[in-house]
Amino acid sequence: MSEVQEQTETPLSSILNEWPHLSQEDRLRRFRELDHDDKEDLFLSMPAREQGALMEEFSRAERRIWIRFLAPDDACDLVQELPENLRAEILSLVDETARREIIALLSYREDEAGGLMSPRFARVRPDMLVAEAIRYVRQQARVVDPIHYVYVLDSHQKLLGVISLRQLFVSPAERKTSDVMETELITIPDEMDQESVSRLFTQHRYVALPVVDAEGRMQGVVTLDDILDVSQEEATEDIQKLGGTEALDAPYSEVSFLQMIKKRGGWLMILFIGEMFTASAMHQFEDEIQRAVVLALFIPLIISSGGNSGSQASTLIIRAIALQEIRLRDWWRVFLRETGTGLCLGLMLATIGMIRILLWPNREQVYTEHYFLVSVAVAASLVGVVLFGSLVGSMLPFLLRRLKLDPASASAPMVATLVDVTGLVIYFEFAKIFLRGTLL
Amino acid sequence: MSEVQEQTETPLSSILNEWPHLSQEDRLRRFRELDHDDKEDLFLSMPAREQGALMEEFSRAERRIWIRFLAPDDACDLVQELPENLRAEILSLVDETARREIIALLSYREDEAGGLMSPRFARVRPDMLVAEAIRYVRQQARVVDPIHYVYVLDSHQKLLGVISLRQLFVSPAERKTSDVMETELITIPDEMDQESVSRLFTQHRYVALPVVDAEGRMQGVVTLDDILDVSQEEATEDIQKLGGTEALDAPYSEVSFLQMIKKRGGWLMILFIGEMFTASAMHQFEDEIQRAVVLALFIPLIISSGGNSGSQASTLIIRAIALQEIRLRDWWRVFLRETGTGLCLGLMLATIGMIRILLWPNREQVYTEHYFLVSVAVAASLVGVVLFGSLVGSMLPFLLRRLKLDPASASAPMVATLVDVTGLVIYFEFAKIFLRGTLL
Repeated sequence: MSEVQEQTETPLSSILNEWPHLSQEDRLRRFRELDHDDKEDLFLSMPAREQGALMEEFSRAERRIWIRFLAPDDACDLVQELPENLRAEILSLVDETARREIIALLSYREDEAGGLMSPRFARVRPDMLVAEAIRYVRQQARVVDPIHYVYVLDSHQKLLGVISLRQLFVSPAERKTSDVMETELITIPDEMDQESVSRLFTQHRYVALPVVDAEGRMQGVVTLDDILDVSQEEATEDIQKLGGTEALDAPYSEVSFLQMIKKRGGWLMILFIGEMFTASAMHQFEDEIQRAVVLALFIPLIISSGGNSGSQASTLIIRAIALQEIRLRDWWRVFLRETGTGLCLGLMLATIGMIRILLWPNREQVYTEHYFLVSVAVAASLVGVVLFGSLVGSMLPFLLRRLKLDPASASAPMVATLVDVTGLVIYFEFAKIFLRGTLL
Repeated sequence: MSEVQEQTETPLSSILNEWPHLSQEDRLRRFRELDHDDKEDLFLSMPAREQGALMEEFSRAERRIWIRFLAPDDACDLVQELPENLRAEILSLVDETARREIIALLSYREDEAGGLMSPRFARVRPDMLVAEAIRYVRQQARVVDPIHYVYVLDSHQKLLGVISLRQLFVSPAERKTSDVMETELITIPDEMDQESVSRLFTQHRYVALPVVDAEGRMQGVVTLDDILDVSQEEATEDIQKLGGTEALDAPYSEVSFLQMIKKRGGWLMILFIGEMFTASAMHQFEDEIQRAVVLALFIPLIISSGGNSGSQASTLIIRAIALQEIRLRDWWRVFLRETGTGLCLGLMLATIGMIRILLWPNREQVYTEHYFLVSVAVAASLVGVVLFGSLVGSMLPFLLRRLKLDPASASAPMVATLVDVTGLVIYFEFAKIFLRGTLL
């Protein structure tokens, strides 16, 4: 029983919690202090990048142990993280079969099904009896782990059917595997991108799915735990892009100072240059500001309201597109909907804004004797700007998708930048209309 | 072979792709047109909310079929989606055992381990021989699906060990289960919140983990496919909050107009009220603007740069905290780092800003004869504002976490709003310093 209660205090679990925060040096030291079983668990729990970093510091004997310990797909991921000069050495440390498997996997891109799959799976022939199949799978179980499904292949490696281990377990020993196998198959083409693979797993709740090449020949198996990583990575990338940076591709604390400046500075400069148009727009309205300085007071309030409503709309639409809840062709429906939402939200802010100006204690001093007209101009601008923000924010992701760009680039800062210039124009044009003959 | 090639054109797969975009009426019609196997696959692939919506429109006979078809944990999720008046009826349609299981699960919160788990799992006793255990598991396999692990329990239901189905498969028939079981267990307390459960699965790559109560008694099993949903939901919530809305809790197109206004309007009004302080801040500097209207030109540019750098910093930190890459106590390290990053990024923007002013063709007309001093004031403000933005953006998530609030509330719009007022003050104070005696 004690294992259950005390599991949180084992050396392994304490190191697992500390791990992300340790220096490379400490990681190596703490790793070497563990007993062999814990080392195995820890090594398996690390992302390939961290395994690679340790590998670089290991002795040759350690490298040999750990590269041989990994399944071919994980070994392939690790090799991809190593500097060129180490790759050949590491590959020379595994046996011929594994080397061939790893090299085959290296030919796939990291973000396609072939790059995610394990090339090892349990296979049987369609004419085997269940009892034979069980014996045959037991042999394979020494090198294949985990086994959730057993795949039925013909002599050309083409995939005919699937039997779950549980099904094999409960089927009568004398039946043929082809009689108990499932033939309505969900298969993954080996070049499918990882986002689509992830979607297949979300739609069909299987623990593993087979990967086949263009001729239907079985290539390997993608398991659900790989997909958990993929789905988390994709979400992280989207979140970082939505914040207006490039995806970091590594934990915050492991990104070098220079890398960080590059990932953030690029977008920040682009946004800054875009935002420079506000200075030009403002220049057009310098006369108006000169005549009625009170107008300047509301500039930040008005443009930020447009940015905020745009940020809301773009974020909701980007996530809905990523989850395939809405498609490109839904843009018109979304446009109509955001028109309604934007108008309604704009009216809410306009009301608050008017109340603030009309009820302000020393309103005539702060907002001039024409404070009522000022409040009308501000209110009208708020409706216009919030509506415009919602429309730009919701349509930009569709446009990017249409141009085959990543909708997540329609970040909150980018939408705000696009909306700011127009927001200024809307505001000053309304001001001209409502304040002509009084302040202007 | 044809199943493999043609799998994308089955009635089921076409309906799966259409599904999110169909009206409730069409869903019911299309569902009823399918053959029984496809109905089963489709029903399983739906989230509980959609199953519930169909259930409301089903006939009593259909309700009976489909509630009985679901495993108890999925049935429980469905029941939670139903209106009160339907729950009792639906519960009366399942047999006594299932009803007891579902009612037990209903007592857990949806977002804790007990609410995620299935109460059905394969169990054996520690004194059973492997051959006996296999026979016993084969019997259980009729009601337990899937089986990935077999759990070894003592007579008080306490969890002693775990054997993978594969391990049971390859173990010698005459050994005792207690000799082949794994005793170093990762267990989930039944009240653990789903985010922590999700983290356990990411750390340890298992397909299923056992849930135990405070006395170590086995309660059920959480499987990896439940975690995939959890991790996607959590990411969606975080993304929506980062965009400055409340989490929608439903797909964009299924949220009613009123709900949408509520989810967006609340934050939008809070941000608007916060942003009103910019009007007060601007009022303090009305004299300066009156004397040097040129200063107004750069207001949007400067405050938006602060907002953008803040949005970058907060997004990166919020995601890093969510993935546990950084902890509360790392705040000081992050503070130092963001000081460096903010200064560097600020200098980059300041350089671009200065170049723009100094090289502008008719710079003396647009920026007055003191354009050099104006450019210095703008540049200094940019450094100050970007630095301040990075620091507020990076520290706010820590502060929220410290206050036990959700760090993801430090949305891009919220950080921008916080930074805007200070940005204005920084700008005008620098302007006063550099332009005293010339423009001011």
